[in-house]
Amino acid sequence: MDLPDALTAQLQTLLGARFSRAAAIRDQHAGGGMHLPALPPQAVATVENVEEIVAVVHACADHSVPIIPYGAGTSLECHVGAPRGGVSIDLSGMKRVLRVSMDDQDCTVEAGLTRVALNDELRHTGLFFPVDPGADATIGGMAATRASGTTTLRYGGMRENVMALTVVTADGRVVKTARRARKSAAGYDLTHLFVGSEGTLGVIADVTLKLHPTPEATSAAVCAFESSHGATQTVIESVQCGLPLARAEYLDAAAIAAVNRAFSTDYMESDTLFLEFHGSPQEVTTHAERVSAIAAENGGGEFRWAIESEARNQLWKARHQAGFAALSLRPGARPWSTDVCVPISQLAACIDKTKRDIALLPFPAVVLGHIGDGNFHVILLLDPANLGEMDAAKRFNDTLISRAIEMDGTSTGEHGIGLGKRDSLRHELGGAVDLMADIKHALDPRAIMNPEKIFASKASLSAHGRPNR
Amino acid sequence: MDLPDALTAQLQTLLGARFSRAAAIRDQHAGGGMHLPALPPQAVATVENVEEIVAVVHACADHSVPIIPYGAGTSLECHVGAPRGGVSIDLSGMKRVLRVSMDDQDCTVEAGLTRVALNDELRHTGLFFPVDPGADATIGGMAATRASGTTTLRYGGMRENVMALTVVTADGRVVKTARRARKSAAGYDLTHLFVGSEGTLGVIADVTLKLHPTPEATSAAVCAFESSHGATQTVIESVQCGLPLARAEYLDAAAIAAVNRAFSTDYMESDTLFLEFHGSPQEVTTHAERVSAIAAENGGGEFRWAIESEARNQLWKARHQAGFAALSLRPGARPWSTDVCVPISQLAACIDKTKRDIALLPFPAVVLGHIGDGNFHVILLLDPANLGEMDAAKRFNDTLISRAIEMDGTSTGEHGIGLGKRDSLRHELGGAVDLMADIKHALDPRAIMNPEKIFASKASLSAHGRPNR
Repeated sequence: MDLPDALTAQLQTLLGARFSRAAAIRDQHAGGGMHLPALPPQAVATVENVEEIVAVVHACADHSVPIIPYGAGTSLECHVGAPRGGVSIDLSGMKRVLRVSMDDQDCTVEAGLTRVALNDELRHTGLFFPVDPGADATIGGMAATRASGTTTLRYGGMRENVMALTVVTADGRVVKTARRARKSAAGYDLTHLFVGSEGTLGVIADVTLKLHPTPEATSAAVCAFESSHGATQTVIESVQCGLPLARAEYLDAAAIAAVNRAFSTDYMESDTLFLEFHGSPQEVTTHAERVSAIAAENGGGEFRWAIESEARNQLWKARHQAGFAALSLRPGARPWSTDVCVPISQLAACIDKTKRDIALLPFPAVVLGHIGDGNFHVILLLDPANLGEMDAAKRFNDTLISRAIEMDGTSTGEHGIGLGKRDSLRHELGGAVDLMADIKHALDPRAIMNPEKIFASKASLSAHGRPNR
Repeated sequence: MDLPDALTAQLQTLLGARFSRAAAIRDQHAGGGMHLPALPPQAVATVENVEEIVAVVHACADHSVPIIPYGAGTSLECHVGAPRGGVSIDLSGMKRVLRVSMDDQDCTVEAGLTRVALNDELRHTGLFFPVDPGADATIGGMAATRASGTTTLRYGGMRENVMALTVVTADGRVVKTARRARKSAAGYDLTHLFVGSEGTLGVIADVTLKLHPTPEATSAAVCAFESSHGATQTVIESVQCGLPLARAEYLDAAAIAAVNRAFSTDYMESDTLFLEFHGSPQEVTTHAERVSAIAAENGGGEFRWAIESEARNQLWKARHQAGFAALSLRPGARPWSTDVCVPISQLAACIDKTKRDIALLPFPAVVLGHIGDGNFHVILLLDPANLGEMDAAKRFNDTLISRAIEMDGTSTGEHGIGLGKRDSLRHELGGAVDLMADIKHALDPRAIMNPEKIFASKASLSAHGRPNR
């Protein structure tokens, strides 16, 4: 299972101690989790600049050895695992802010910077970067997986906020996908092609991002409902009225119970919305009043407000860590998160049917949703040693994905395909997947860029002792 | 210059009178204009459904004959011309609205429907389709050229408003690029790859579009400035304050003079902004007041209001036809429109320098700009018989494009590359163009889909009597 000696020597010379074959380091870069196995790479190459990325790519390409880009390792579908071995290229050392323009409200950052670190750096500019998937992922990783999260409803996800990328191609060229104009009709949209390509077309070295003015006023509120239907309907009607909700998150009663247990909070344990409003003080007040009225018509209780920054942080910590909190319902369990997204007209029905399926599961589960976008997660709390549970979870997820696709939705709103959803992708998009594979083959003919992710490799690899799968 | 007899027979059998080789019909589909020659196709095939597109593509592919998609023929860089001959596939007969969802605020339409016809059909839904490039282009053509226009600042252009496409590939497969979820992380973003691909990767058959709630209140205003700098600065500062301008159009004094002459209006003949505000009545008032204050600080005069629908229509007619109106400054002239787009921080400097260049031109020119996006057009009014003028225009445009690229902008904000800007594309994006060409070759190995557009063909074509260029 060793890399070719010549490659090892080359990378050692290039990176010194930043090239490692130590088991502990490889295991940290192995991905896995949920239902997917950890798949450690054969070595880890930690790079500090684009020239080093190019050198690593050239070296690996010369030996047809796979390259797996690695940021913070927070992705959920084993995007960073190494099913065909190869070198994990760790970008976490590339975390400089290369430029910020307050006038243009944009910035360029190295791929390994995390979103929290970026917002720390922006603190005094009056601008912020809104995309918030919960985890403190790297900007490069978020671009690669087309991440989104709680603020997408108002600000868009990575798809809407990446303006340009510098990428290193499979043959070691450095390419800038676009310039910095707010719009352009100049040729194919390579930026959007690389956003969501999961490292299968090249390594993202830096990212130019839209920034947004820090809102003058922010307020958050929690509202409990009699039913999931009332909660979803409130968000749907608010969106349809054009009310610019900054966040609209749904937690079912089980999720709220888990949050209360984990964080000693005292939210009413029923289907609940966590809401946030951004704007001028007047706008925030007006919008909150209008949403509150819509909520009341849909069986919602009083708004419980979190105005001060500390109270808001507490509230969103509870939401962001709700998946973690769910573990309190079954200590030692392994969480498996689903990720369907459906047209909003189908959302209430989709959640209703899914909740009926949840009631039949032999293990606990909670529902969390970015429901203004039609996206929700079911966190399944599994005993990984119990094969019957793993099977039931798989059947549950398959049913949910089929339901979402029947509703003209997607198997993955924001987690990506990785190794876990390749069959779903074919189910969802049919022949379009062949076009994707043609593009993959054109840009990476030797199939060395994060092979097996999104779709099974066409090309057969030498794979250095690993059997083809 | 004839098509192969077998192909002609096949297409005649398939389409009857909707297949034509008449010179008049071919000339209507020849593109050209500005500095580009008309390049009639060898025949025109008018299709009525996706099956007919597939049949035409199969037939042409069998003979390696080019296929040039045609909508309304309003594009400006000779996108519909036939430099290598071939069959123009006219989609204007495919104009059905296939579905509208009021709940999801989206619709699916056939590619040949025009944007005005779509908005007529939506009139009673409370929704509208905002993208407005001025011309009554088809939705398919707008998607293919990544069109935008006057409302992009608020609503985005085609890049932001196309959710999914059905395309017919170069080998006649029918592929749906995405489903209807508001976001998805499922595989490569084929939708964005085809938006802006100018017919070079396949024929767009139908388009799923985001729709937007018709604003409760709309008001428009005209404001004259002492200088272009004051006008641009007003828009820049408004955007930076997060004021959601629906439209922010700049017309220089020469453009206003042309409008006054053509439409008998009485606008003050100085650098001017045409503005529009959308929202609740209160929001419209508040935003207009804030912009008005910013304008006053930048040397702007009083706002001249157009509140009623008729007055607003008149105002936007004047703006949209300002290019046409410019011809009144030099009857019989041929207009040539430039299209650079720069980061907004560079806009004032870019317009200033460009105006100094305009002052030295041996022919009249006006400036029109979607300046909230950093995009502006110079309409050059040329005597096409005067080669010296054509040369001066070319030099002017080359200088302008170089300036925009130096400012990290683009040669084309919204008109596209077509035949006219292939060199600029290389100048702007360098090695990224090779990736585009690799993708083109992967999806269209015989180079039959709108060949020579965006970049020169790699593959040599038989071209049926036409020399390779």
